[in-house]
Amino acid sequence: MSESRRGAPRGRGDSSIPEAVVGRLSLYLRELQHLLREGQQTTSSTQLGDRLGFTDAQVRKDLTHFGQFGYPGIGYRCEELATAIRQILGTDRQWPIVLVGLGNLGRALLGYRGFGQQGFRISAAFDVAIDSQDQSLDGIPVYPMERLRDVIAAEQIKLGVIAVPGPAAQQVAETLVTAGLEGILNFAPVTLNLPPSVRVVSVDLAVELEQLSFAVVNRAPNA
Amino acid sequence: MSESRRGAPRGRGDSSIPEAVVGRLSLYLRELQHLLREGQQTTSSTQLGDRLGFTDAQVRKDLTHFGQFGYPGIGYRCEELATAIRQILGTDRQWPIVLVGLGNLGRALLGYRGFGQQGFRISAAFDVAIDSQDQSLDGIPVYPMERLRDVIAAEQIKLGVIAVPGPAAQQVAETLVTAGLEGILNFAPVTLNLPPSVRVVSVDLAVELEQLSFAVVNRAPNA
Repeated sequence: MSESRRGAPRGRGDSSIPEAVVGRLSLYLRELQHLLREGQQTTSSTQLGDRLGFTDAQVRKDLTHFGQFGYPGIGYRCEELATAIRQILGTDRQWPIVLVGLGNLGRALLGYRGFGQQGFRISAAFDVAIDSQDQSLDGIPVYPMERLRDVIAAEQIKLGVIAVPGPAAQQVAETLVTAGLEGILNFAPVTLNLPPSVRVVSVDLAVELEQLSFAVVNRAPNA
Repeated sequence: MSESRRGAPRGRGDSSIPEAVVGRLSLYLRELQHLLREGQQTTSSTQLGDRLGFTDAQVRKDLTHFGQFGYPGIGYRCEELATAIRQILGTDRQWPIVLVGLGNLGRALLGYRGFGQQGFRISAAFDVAIDSQDQSLDGIPVYPMERLRDVIAAEQIKLGVIAVPGPAAQQVAETLVTAGLEGILNFAPVTLNLPPSVRVVSVDLAVELEQLSFAVVNRAPNA
């Protein structure tokens, strides 16, 4: 989990939009992409809700934050709504991102195809164990840590992923912010202390498992 | 993200406790563990809140769901509160978990030390590419998919992690549920359709990045 995901909104985004709504927008976009691949041109709040386990009222209410998307007697046009959501999320453009830390997790993230499908491209990776500037992994250039600031500045990168060990994370995060990053996806199991203008989403996989153990322990006896 | 994390509660856990509260409990536990390592015996809602970016009122309100933990003039006793939270989360015991899918991400998860630190232990891993029963990776036994059901039954496993490609995920999830799993951490970028008695937490890393791009795009001009 996340200092930002489960707590009060962080950063200075449009604070009138709850984070949970933004998260569900991503899910609506995924379903619209699935529907389009299946050849479906239109959909409804009921269908979108059914596929995701939400009510149709929830779907409509979420979308109302951003405008009017439905057509009477038709519902939503899949392509049009997907395009609108991409604009809202900012993924109507390509986002270059940097990855810091090339341990097991970092290397898995390098090969993770889900990023590219949604408009994110790892354009450079960094690790303390890299000492030459002429290396690449999976076609992505990898650099020593000393190169962080000039690579970020040269490519005007705004987003980064931290996959370093916990004790190193705060210093890496500060370097990224000084270099100009505005959003950080943090896999290190520590809470980063950064200026409020920087948006941090932390993914702590053990926290996710604790959600599951809580659910199993608190299961109704006859479930 | 997740059908369960951002939407209505799924599964039949204690539905009076919001998911966000359970997520924050995990964060309080992490901070208490940090404080104990730093040698601190007691803490306060203000200190816990400060370290996580929450208000002290939020911390107190969250804990009130589960009982009375503070002492007048002392605050919280770190060890006692950590023990209580572990009991609430169910991590006062060891949870054996199964991992399905040994691609890049699955192998990274095999080596992820954060699980063990919080009471989760990958006790078996499965992949379609495994054809012998006598293999292990990082000391963890790996099996062909055909062995899923009997390994889960023999070890009475309740929690599993899915790290297979999207198209394979639904069928794997159904097999896991039939074998007796009650909680699934899903890394495949698809929405799983499972009985409501099964708790699913999905982690879609591109969704997390979309939270960041949304924040950057909607940043106040002078931020």
